[in-house]
Amino acid sequence: MRSLRVALAQINTTVGDFAGNTAKIREYIDRARSLGADLVAFPEMAITGYPPEDLLLKTHFIQENLRRRDELLRHTQGIVAVVGFVDAPNDLYNAAAIIADGNLCGVYHKAYLPNYGVFDEDRYFRPGSICPIFTVKGIGVGVNICEDIWHATGPIARQASAEAQIIININASPYHAGKGSFRETMLATRASDNTVIVCYVNLVGGQDELVFDGGSLIFNEKGQLLARGKQFEEDLMVVDLDVESVFRTRLRDPRGRQQRMAQQASGQSCPTIPIPQVGTEADKTPLARRDLQPYDMPEEVYHALVLGTRDYVNKNGFKKVVIGLSGGIDSSIVAVIAVDALGPENVLGVSMPSRYSSPGSKSDAQLLAHNLGMKLLTIPIEKTFTASLDTLSEAFAGTPSGVAEENLQARLRGNLLMALSNKFGWLVLTTGNKSEMATGYATLYGDMAGGLAVIKDVPKTLVYKLSHYRNAQAGRDLIPQSVIAKEPTAELRPNQRDVDSLPPYEVLDPILEAYIEEDKGPGEIVALGFDPAMVHKVVTMVDRNEYKRRQSPPGIKITPKAFGRDRRLPITSRYQPFPQG
Amino acid sequence: MRSLRVALAQINTTVGDFAGNTAKIREYIDRARSLGADLVAFPEMAITGYPPEDLLLKTHFIQENLRRRDELLRHTQGIVAVVGFVDAPNDLYNAAAIIADGNLCGVYHKAYLPNYGVFDEDRYFRPGSICPIFTVKGIGVGVNICEDIWHATGPIARQASAEAQIIININASPYHAGKGSFRETMLATRASDNTVIVCYVNLVGGQDELVFDGGSLIFNEKGQLLARGKQFEEDLMVVDLDVESVFRTRLRDPRGRQQRMAQQASGQSCPTIPIPQVGTEADKTPLARRDLQPYDMPEEVYHALVLGTRDYVNKNGFKKVVIGLSGGIDSSIVAVIAVDALGPENVLGVSMPSRYSSPGSKSDAQLLAHNLGMKLLTIPIEKTFTASLDTLSEAFAGTPSGVAEENLQARLRGNLLMALSNKFGWLVLTTGNKSEMATGYATLYGDMAGGLAVIKDVPKTLVYKLSHYRNAQAGRDLIPQSVIAKEPTAELRPNQRDVDSLPPYEVLDPILEAYIEEDKGPGEIVALGFDPAMVHKVVTMVDRNEYKRRQSPPGIKITPKAFGRDRRLPITSRYQPFPQG
Repeated sequence: MRSLRVALAQINTTVGDFAGNTAKIREYIDRARSLGADLVAFPEMAITGYPPEDLLLKTHFIQENLRRRDELLRHTQGIVAVVGFVDAPNDLYNAAAIIADGNLCGVYHKAYLPNYGVFDEDRYFRPGSICPIFTVKGIGVGVNICEDIWHATGPIARQASAEAQIIININASPYHAGKGSFRETMLATRASDNTVIVCYVNLVGGQDELVFDGGSLIFNEKGQLLARGKQFEEDLMVVDLDVESVFRTRLRDPRGRQQRMAQQASGQSCPTIPIPQVGTEADKTPLARRDLQPYDMPEEVYHALVLGTRDYVNKNGFKKVVIGLSGGIDSSIVAVIAVDALGPENVLGVSMPSRYSSPGSKSDAQLLAHNLGMKLLTIPIEKTFTASLDTLSEAFAGTPSGVAEENLQARLRGNLLMALSNKFGWLVLTTGNKSEMATGYATLYGDMAGGLAVIKDVPKTLVYKLSHYRNAQAGRDLIPQSVIAKEPTAELRPNQRDVDSLPPYEVLDPILEAYIEEDKGPGEIVALGFDPAMVHKVVTMVDRNEYKRRQSPPGIKITPKAFGRDRRLPITSRYQPFPQG
Repeated sequence: MRSLRVALAQINTTVGDFAGNTAKIREYIDRARSLGADLVAFPEMAITGYPPEDLLLKTHFIQENLRRRDELLRHTQGIVAVVGFVDAPNDLYNAAAIIADGNLCGVYHKAYLPNYGVFDEDRYFRPGSICPIFTVKGIGVGVNICEDIWHATGPIARQASAEAQIIININASPYHAGKGSFRETMLATRASDNTVIVCYVNLVGGQDELVFDGGSLIFNEKGQLLARGKQFEEDLMVVDLDVESVFRTRLRDPRGRQQRMAQQASGQSCPTIPIPQVGTEADKTPLARRDLQPYDMPEEVYHALVLGTRDYVNKNGFKKVVIGLSGGIDSSIVAVIAVDALGPENVLGVSMPSRYSSPGSKSDAQLLAHNLGMKLLTIPIEKTFTASLDTLSEAFAGTPSGVAEENLQARLRGNLLMALSNKFGWLVLTTGNKSEMATGYATLYGDMAGGLAVIKDVPKTLVYKLSHYRNAQAGRDLIPQSVIAKEPTAELRPNQRDVDSLPPYEVLDPILEAYIEEDKGPGEIVALGFDPAMVHKVVTMVDRNEYKRRQSPPGIKITPKAFGRDRRLPITSRYQPFPQG
């Protein structure tokens, strides 16, 4: 059987960590070689980390990336490595280096640059036009990058028509819930459309708002899944790819032949670059087939949040985090995620009761901390609240107590958490969910104060599902039932309930999804069956609170459209998206 | 003399204010008509306001923009109007409608989309390919949009070669210091290169971080300035353009003829669209020539800050602002700007002395408020500071007083200002300058708490220049000499001075400019003559404080690269831009 042993190195890089990223690349090259791989592929921009954003505008950053690429050359004895980097022959290109046996054999430049959603690649890169085929042990290998493969008539069609049998597609594809199955369907179709084996290697790890979910994939030329890598973890997948089967399938596929001939006739040919002989045939023992099942929902989201939290904390040089525990479900799930990400010894809870806190709130926070094995400090805010009201009494004279006094409590709590952060070097995790961020039901510089907003992109209804999932998985109530059962409240005034200000979450969340994630207009949302006054109220809240979101900490993206770089709205806007007249 | 009377309507639009923007467009059409104009041109995307950012992804927003364009048609009796809008025949285009006598005669689509700096136009628009010429009273008029004219071989070359005599270039060009003269040089060259009259109409007004500076321009076909509009104010410039002179100049310019012939031979021709007869010849009295002088520095920056502040406050529905006055120069200049923008009756100062405040700080704040005729509240923070230290005494036991205790004071002040904001509906203006924002010499949720960071893009050394300028302009010390003369201090511990933590500002600011605005590497900055250890320290401070800037309020861009949408760096980055090894 003519075959190629391919390794997909799904690694966790860090933006700008040239030393760490290249050390990891060398380590995985060595591991792949020791497993008999002929070729090992790394994620998009593995040398720089992804996305480096405006670091790309610094020539010294680009130069170091090129030096690091050149240093890698001598570590590729007997193996082909496909490594993402930034090429800069004259302009910048998002590129893959094809390195073998100490030589830079060729370079591929990404042809399709994403500039939507969280992506800004037109800001930095020129699209590529060259589209080489590399022959490894006589087998045609086409390399392309991420977005390229989403285009049916893009590089994969050219490479397949130039008789590539294997496509290596290197990625840094940010996670959102549900993306995985869409991605698998697309890749299966690309493979069968072009009668090629498609090897999809993805980045894994957290980077600011983004989580890269790994889950690398290999489909054979019939669109059948050959292997699926781990999700949310580093992985090295090594698979023997049967290229005789590719040739056999092509012989029986006149439609594919016509397509490849038409492509060749278009004049967009691919130059062929031969790769020096690598590896040996002798050391190849057959490999067991890998077939991991993908996570179900909401487990998948849970793992994304854990990885995103761990990487944000650790990659920014922190070890410990501190969380204000109110006894509510939001701070409880954040504490559980943090403990899973960092260990209970690195998570500190702080209960900051006020005159409006119910006894249940305090005991629930204690019970949660006990269940998680984490430390809990109790620091009441009564003294500072009284002193603040006193200090403001003259300025506030004659005014009724209201939102100023409510927010003051949240801000005093923010002060305490930040004081602990400044004193002991702990990162503050904030606990607001997406429903709150959307409607502005949070206090700027109060409960919004912190370094990472763990569940900023998680709607409240999904917070409940995650809590149920994690309790079920633990086989016990990590999050106390009393926390899950109680009615949501901010406890900033007597008998306050969320439903005094907001629609019930099971109504609110679908409206928010339609308005924020799908950009539907109010009229379209009403047509889904929601009360017009309710839609009007919710949409107005969302629009009015852009200023708060602009100053919020980054949060982990888990939906198709998160607040942050994914959704860029002006603060200053008089647009009223309601049917006029 | 064959001539066209052209009006440039330099208006202040608001993003999403369809009713307000189109009412203003109608008003200026009427004014232009009454002044005998044949054609009136409005800024880029005048109907929607600029930049609407992701509002453009909402189909209901696009539809309303099209309805508003159609409503304008019937208001164009006897005149040609060139109006910026978003066209959506199949995809989105940044477009100009050419409307005359009730008809939509044609549409131009912007061909060059900026996607650098503060711009994201590739995120929304498809580049245009059509390039029509409109004949108005037999005179060829080419219309193009903003970025288009920065390309020497772009639409202007095609339109001139198709015998356009006049180019209408509609803009939304964000201000930064020094851009004006660069723009004038370029436009003069385009006009003489192509032997056309260039009419450049710019937006005016503030939009979040951006200020559009107006200063519309007309150059004749020899590259001579015919007219310059007001800066930082609305304006209607009406000028008679002598197209006989264009023809005469072309007859004597064989080089231009060759260029136009070559362009025509390239096959990129422009369709000609005749515009119905407009206006009358009878009502034309000769116009006086307009020749305003542009502002010198730092007056120009000062006006930008005043306009940016006024528009941010008013367009967001606020009337009054509140500012913490420390007696230092930063809060003093912000107060002066705010009073110039909003009037003294709409600006409230708050002095919040602590145990570390010098008597001079308090008296300077009082003197400043007196000079400006604004109200000053005094709210000491001693009581809340003591209560907070008390509350934290157990958690902080055994630790030396340090940055936690310092930041606590700043955050308690932030609490007070935000409490006043929540109670009375005043917008908080923050007072940090660019040197502080760059080095992180500011307290997150403390002095960084507020809605608009007025001088966020103003280096400290420029703060002094602005203060001297404004005092000189007033003919008296609005900002007390004692404020200007005192050594900068945060007054968060005894005898604290900025130079304990930072290099002197006259050293710091040029390093920051090289690193931030010019993206120079540390090695290049040292080569400019700065101490390597100092450069290392400053660069490290800048890089480590990205997390603070990410949560800072928007500030008004006045330099080529401001913090905000202009400079997009990851928080998570291990990049160390120092020569290795």
